[in-house]
Amino acid sequence: MSDFDYQQLDDVIHSRIRLAIMALLITVEEAEFVYLREKVNTTDGNLSVHLKKLEDAGYVSIKKEFIERKPRTMYSISKNGRKAFEAYLEHLEKLIKK
Amino acid sequence: MSDFDYQQLDDVIHSRIRLAIMALLITVEEAEFVYLREKVNTTDGNLSVHLKKLEDAGYVSIKKEFIERKPRTMYSISKNGRKAFEAYLEHLEKLIKK
Repeated sequence: MSDFDYQQLDDVIHSRIRLAIMALLITVEEAEFVYLREKVNTTDGNLSVHLKKLEDAGYVSIKKEFIERKPRTMYSISKNGRKAFEAYLEHLEKLIKK
Repeated sequence: MSDFDYQQLDDVIHSRIRLAIMALLITVEEAEFVYLREKVNTTDGNLSVHLKKLEDAGYVSIKKEFIERKPRTMYSISKNGRKAFEAYLEHLEKLIKK
């Protein structure tokens, strides 16, 4: 198979915003919605949609908790998400490191 | 500005197939349509659409020639395309090398 076969790149991760989310989540233990939104520089709606896609793929885990009676939602990369991200980076490197 | 700001990635280059085309073209002087199609692993229609987008952005140059009276179309990365690809890789590295 050719290293330039574009379908080797995981489509769930490759979208610009989901790639940014995954790249951020892999560097932290967990992150709050607002923090993600600011770092990735997007809107509530857009971020929600893409976090949902990552959650549906099993790449991101969600934890709802209460801090001083206020609800807070924390996002973290899952074990599968970490594996998928590493595989994605490997394919990406093969593609661009020629 | 946050390194995780997804809009820093050039959208014209980032699509999986256009990224594969650019990554291939940067390694060769020029390439024929059929060669690109096989390496990137796609259909005529899909490849045409994405080469057109890269051409419209000024990233890819097209040269039509005749070899033994048969028409042949050669694609190469332009000077601007090379610059854009390098800028893209820089942003990508900032994003994933945390």
